Amino acid sequence: MYFTEKHAFIKQSLKIEEKLFERQTLYQNIEVYKSKALGNILVIDDNAMLSEKDEFIYHEMLSHVPIYTHLKPQKVLIIGGGDGGTAREVLKHPNLSVDMVEIDEEVVTVSKKYFPNLGDWDHPRLNLIIDDGAAFIKNAKEKSYDIILIDSTDDKENASVLFQSEFYADAERVLKDDGILSIQGSSWFVDFEVHQKLLKKLDAKFEIVMPYRYEMFTYPGIIWNFILASKKYHPLTDLNLNQKNEIQQLQYYNEQIHKASFALPNYIKEKMQK
Amino acid sequence: MYFTEKHAFIKQSLKIEEKLFERQTLYQNIEVYKSKALGNILVIDDNAMLSEKDEFIYHEMLSHVPIYTHLKPQKVLIIGGGDGGTAREVLKHPNLSVDMVEIDEEVVTVSKKYFPNLGDWDHPRLNLIIDDGAAFIKNAKEKSYDIILIDSTDDKENASVLFQSEFYADAERVLKDDGILSIQGSSWFVDFEVHQKLLKKLDAKFEIVMPYRYEMFTYPGIIWNFILASKKYHPLTDLNLNQKNEIQQLQYYNEQIHKASFALPNYIKEKMQK
Repeated sequence: MYFTEKHAFIKQSLKIEEKLFERQTLYQNIEVYKSKALGNILVIDDNAMLSEKDEFIYHEMLSHVPIYTHLKPQKVLIIGGGDGGTAREVLKHPNLSVDMVEIDEEVVTVSKKYFPNLGDWDHPRLNLIIDDGAAFIKNAKEKSYDIILIDSTDDKENASVLFQSEFYADAERVLKDDGILSIQGSSWFVDFEVHQKLLKKLDAKFEIVMPYRYEMFTYPGIIWNFILASKKYHPLTDLNLNQKNEIQQLQYYNEQIHKASFALPNYIKEKMQK
Repeated sequence: MYFTEKHAFIKQSLKIEEKLFERQTLYQNIEVYKSKALGNILVIDDNAMLSEKDEFIYHEMLSHVPIYTHLKPQKVLIIGGGDGGTAREVLKHPNLSVDMVEIDEEVVTVSKKYFPNLGDWDHPRLNLIIDDGAAFIKNAKEKSYDIILIDSTDDKENASVLFQSEFYADAERVLKDDGILSIQGSSWFVDFEVHQKLLKKLDAKFEIVMPYRYEMFTYPGIIWNFILASKKYHPLTDLNLNQKNEIQQLQYYNEQIHKASFALPNYIKEKMQK
């Protein structure tokens, strides 16, 4: 028995044992599958979001890359991220506090039950807000955050507002003068056009915009990209892990990986210049 | 219509239009599929070997990483590689000559017909030998090559001799004192045990043994590894691209990518120490 997802020319199937859960919420269809090799798999609107086996890669790369690029971050806003994994990573940094705005409370409920290792829901530095992320950021005070992490589904249905120029203008306003935004940014490899459109929208609002790669077994095409959009700090020349308290027990992220994730193959560079 | 390949917990299907060719040779079953997105796809014993769209990644990374690690290579031995792509990349370096030992002449014939951009078959610095690679290397003179590239199918059937300690002992003998070997080495991600076994066999014969990653859309799991085994030069500290005539027109490889491909996630480092 397989969970299958199609993306462009690739169809990827993950071996599963059974479906543990399914519910259509106000916002989306949520499913959970059980897999021997990958642990439980979270599926939203037919797209695999994460598995227990590989979620650490996504969550570490979305959070620690901008955090270590920033000189002295304190306040982090997470839009989406209702499974809890991104907040878990951010909160490993002892000086950071998190506002997390998830639109669909059911994602939190499902995560608590089926992905107990993802969320540290009672953490004193976590402020969970159930609300529309785009509306929240429109109403938020300017310059209130050091880092914004957009941890959403793909650019479709109710998440599409998070991929609009208007939203990035709001995010820019809400970020401090040395703020950084990171966002799930599709894939060089599988969906170059979607990726490039997003780069261009962010380029219009931020000084430094750079894609970086990560891999998830649960995503068709496996190699996907985040995009870092920064007002001031550069992720390679301003990276200074040594000036910070080093976090122990990261499973994926390290300095070598941070730098490597920004390396661009020649053909991708060329495509980007078009 | 899809070509489907199963590997551990992942089943990957590539969209295809039709099967163009199939023949069972003395050594293996060869198929060619036509795909709109990927161009023609070469399949050997049910494993996709390459597509016209992504073959440059595999061939550039197998060849240019050891070539640029070496200070002044001249003679290169390719074992396998009958599709021609690896030799094409090596021969872009004006000082290099190639002996290529392919066991199955039919692979060359199929490549000439269905993958005309892969091989430069009449190149004056290419010496194509149809022979058993393991037997060839056993009989070759000691210290006759600067670089050996093992460009074979996976460790099964007739290729399995290329994954044995005895073969690596022969390769070590045939390499000069500052020689480098690179080999297709399975995958950290999908087949860690196979990958680690190979690392250990090479560790027993070579001073410096380091895996590096590349990606092929046509492989299940997409992220795979080569292993560089070197007698003297280190691929990071001895890399000096500037000392060499820079090759133009590479589609994937560059200095950033070279370095990035050796970055190890923490969990892989830990697994390797076990």
